[in-house]
Amino acid sequence: MPFDPSSLKYDANGLIPAIAQDHATGEVLMMAWMNPESLLETLRTGQVTYWSRSRQALWAKGATSGHVQKLVELRIDCDRDCLLLLVDQAGPACHTNRRSCFYTALRDGEEVVILTPM
Amino acid sequence: MPFDPSSLKYDANGLIPAIAQDHATGEVLMMAWMNPESLLETLRTGQVTYWSRSRQALWAKGATSGHVQKLVELRIDCDRDCLLLLVDQAGPACHTNRRSCFYTALRDGEEVVILTPM
Repeated sequence: MPFDPSSLKYDANGLIPAIAQDHATGEVLMMAWMNPESLLETLRTGQVTYWSRSRQALWAKGATSGHVQKLVELRIDCDRDCLLLLVDQAGPACHTNRRSCFYTALRDGEEVVILTPM
Repeated sequence: MPFDPSSLKYDANGLIPAIAQDHATGEVLMMAWMNPESLLETLRTGQVTYWSRSRQALWAKGATSGHVQKLVELRIDCDRDCLLLLVDQAGPACHTNRRSCFYTALRDGEEVVILTPM
């Protein structure tokens, strides 16, 4: 069936979580939020646009940093309340200049930084 | 530093999103929610326990189905408001008996089911 963004389930704030995953390596890069407008913008442009909760505005990922995410494929989960974005990530996904935002691991009860800035 | 679950950022409902990823293949299996209690239970038992928003109760994944998730590694994102769980998943992660909950893809503007039940 044709895709209808309004058929997704948004939370009380009108948002849906979106997980960005490197389409080639499978690395999970980040998780952010979308509203219907940002999702439509993502599909229209082919580059990922989130909704910034702090700025309450569209957030075209990489618009200032150049670290854009080209959408390779959009996937939807069984409950239609979470999105998985397979992306082609230019440079680091994280604002700390690391490839992934998930750079802290819990090992032997201690937090360990496992990625260095690019 | 030693890990302190209270150092994470929880939302207005006291929850944090947790992404489960197959530790071996990198496949993203599902996204669900945790509160501090479920996270501590996960770390104590080594098997993933979420917080069920619908039942408002701890949800020991696979307790009835047998489709448990053994925690291989916990990762925390830069904002400390999202978790990545590397897991060893027994059988399907999805309640539809599919390996992953993200079994619907958007291709050429149409939704396509890309995984069959196991």
